[in-house]
Amino acid sequence: MKKTEGGVTAAKGFEAASAAAGIKYKERTDMALVYSALPCTVAGTFTTNVVKAAPVIWDRDIVRKGNPVHAVIVNSGIANACTGQEGLDYCRQTAAKAAEVLQIPEDSVLVGSTGVIGMQLPIDRICSGIDMLAAAKSSSLEAGTAAAKAIMTTDTVKKELAYTAQIGGVTVTVGGMAKGSGMIHPNMCTMLSYVTTDLAIAKDLLQKAVSKAVNDSFNMISVDGDTSTNDTFLVLANGASGNAPITEEGADYQAFEEILMQVCKELAMNMAADGEGATHLIESHVINADTEANARILAKSVITSSLTKAAVYGHDANWGRILCALGYSGAEFDPDHVDLYFSDGSKKLLIFTNGAAADYSEEEATEILKKEKVQIISDMHMGEAEAVAWGCDLTHDYVSINADYRS
Amino acid sequence: MKKTEGGVTAAKGFEAASAAAGIKYKERTDMALVYSALPCTVAGTFTTNVVKAAPVIWDRDIVRKGNPVHAVIVNSGIANACTGQEGLDYCRQTAAKAAEVLQIPEDSVLVGSTGVIGMQLPIDRICSGIDMLAAAKSSSLEAGTAAAKAIMTTDTVKKELAYTAQIGGVTVTVGGMAKGSGMIHPNMCTMLSYVTTDLAIAKDLLQKAVSKAVNDSFNMISVDGDTSTNDTFLVLANGASGNAPITEEGADYQAFEEILMQVCKELAMNMAADGEGATHLIESHVINADTEANARILAKSVITSSLTKAAVYGHDANWGRILCALGYSGAEFDPDHVDLYFSDGSKKLLIFTNGAAADYSEEEATEILKKEKVQIISDMHMGEAEAVAWGCDLTHDYVSINADYRS
Repeated sequence: MKKTEGGVTAAKGFEAASAAAGIKYKERTDMALVYSALPCTVAGTFTTNVVKAAPVIWDRDIVRKGNPVHAVIVNSGIANACTGQEGLDYCRQTAAKAAEVLQIPEDSVLVGSTGVIGMQLPIDRICSGIDMLAAAKSSSLEAGTAAAKAIMTTDTVKKELAYTAQIGGVTVTVGGMAKGSGMIHPNMCTMLSYVTTDLAIAKDLLQKAVSKAVNDSFNMISVDGDTSTNDTFLVLANGASGNAPITEEGADYQAFEEILMQVCKELAMNMAADGEGATHLIESHVINADTEANARILAKSVITSSLTKAAVYGHDANWGRILCALGYSGAEFDPDHVDLYFSDGSKKLLIFTNGAAADYSEEEATEILKKEKVQIISDMHMGEAEAVAWGCDLTHDYVSINADYRS
Repeated sequence: MKKTEGGVTAAKGFEAASAAAGIKYKERTDMALVYSALPCTVAGTFTTNVVKAAPVIWDRDIVRKGNPVHAVIVNSGIANACTGQEGLDYCRQTAAKAAEVLQIPEDSVLVGSTGVIGMQLPIDRICSGIDMLAAAKSSSLEAGTAAAKAIMTTDTVKKELAYTAQIGGVTVTVGGMAKGSGMIHPNMCTMLSYVTTDLAIAKDLLQKAVSKAVNDSFNMISVDGDTSTNDTFLVLANGASGNAPITEEGADYQAFEEILMQVCKELAMNMAADGEGATHLIESHVINADTEANARILAKSVITSSLTKAAVYGHDANWGRILCALGYSGAEFDPDHVDLYFSDGSKKLLIFTNGAAADYSEEEATEILKKEKVQIISDMHMGEAEAVAWGCDLTHDYVSINADYRS
């Protein structure tokens, strides 16, 4: 497996485009297209929020039906959530317009939206945008990058990456893009991510690999504890690499699972690091827990704690807040048998042991907390389960961004 | 039932004091005493955090034993949490010193601490502080106020209040003090609160009333989602009012339950309104839910949402975030049948109905969000259960306060 250039157009047979449709933002692109002339097998996961945005309902139906997919149309600025029947009708009109312009079936078009909840989409501008997207679509890496930029909302950097691996004797590419920095929380967040691959694979195996990858990547990040109405993760596989289609769980499937996991983990980390207002990526690593479920609960509780997040922002080695967050997570443990470490990846500092503060240097701790990526390691001494979760610090800018997001 | 002056010394037979012991703060009081020469029946609830501070372990044992209680010694500045055996030893030494100076049994002394986690208490200063407290103790209302001020940490205002009611033919007073603004979350928070009453009541009935009152007051507030290691709520009843001791659940018990509930709700609201950096009290009222459990889950989810809290700070009527928070709460409902209102107590504005935005005036909504107390009403149209939860907005000051709390 090795990293390569590009994002959604890195894999063979995929095209992309962006357009400035003026949906809510002025003077920037706000629509994106991902397209494959070859029919794609598709798998995905969606928000667990009871309140589901219209595009989530639309996409879920398409994925369930199992028809081949050709295109994804995404807009930023307006989320098309809490918009009732009118919002659902706009999804159908978006798909119908794309179907007409791209000459593909209406139910081969997925749609995605991110932005303000509760406003209706200006469907005329969406349709004009689709004309522009169709005219501009290209298989260049730049076109993929343009799409990754168009789906951003409060993101400060575009998120795209790609990997290649040898699978079944041919070179397979898996590339993707993602957006998300606010409303990000375990169990799908807003959080839109689209991954393309030129692998040929059966739908049920693709779904299996997707579910596994999401579980250890997007579901282990949190920015603010708010699970959005729009979270969507979709993988499109068009078979253009020419591999013998994967129809069972052999070595080829394993190789794909690994590369997909890598792409998802890296996209997820990029999202956590770009959390609204964030200045640090926090990696919470729980080791030697009694069960995997508890390891996950404990790891997430640390990166979700507002007090821990604020302490990292202030480079304040206030480790008591971490222990406190482990304590209210819901997992049982004996605080006297927990070891806590701070790490910057190379240096590992013991902070807490035997139920009380370890004899560490406050200066060394502060140094670690100044690093861009701060690792918090909680050794539970109970078993062999482990989990990793990613979050970011809580800053003044997070409040500024969210106190008046709509204006 | 009517409101009266004072706090922990409002009820007959209670004395209080404060002292500047120099534990961590300079130039302010940081120790408090609540004392009754008459033996008190005591009941309480404590943090659900797996990591329990030493004073929580100490107090829980005393309450379980059921011996009469005479005194509570509280310090601010250092939480005596995550301090191992040394921390527990300091609790015993604190109680032993108070027992010696006040000439009461060691196991009649409750202790409480709030402040930084992980630091050891300077036990010499604690002991000197106890000498000062014993010398200064007084039954004046001012002494109660002084105690309420001494237990503050990042609080901006002291919290104390008292009510009187006629119970069993005599005037009974219930008064209390509380501290808490950070690390406040449903299911006990740091959150220290001490209530005194001159009622005579059996221990099991006192505990029953306490559990019920806490459930609908302190357990329904949240500032930042972090449940502390130190949360403690204790009620001391010394019988000085001269009522016939309450030993069964008749009219007298009901009257006490009501007055205790009122005292707890008001103390809880005062804490939420004084959340770290807060500029608004948010009251989330869920009505017509299917079950009380779901009503509570839904009400709390709204006041816990960082995005909703930040929107209230910005006076931004971004109601989509409220619907989103209801949606990820874990309770099932149909978003198309929810009505959402903003209210300032007198004016009630319909914001969301039939699955989409109502035709409301943005100016009117913004006006309501500028009020000190903002009420959010979610009508689920599913049944008859309701619940109220209290929180506060998320502000720049919250981040400032918590980015460098220890220095």
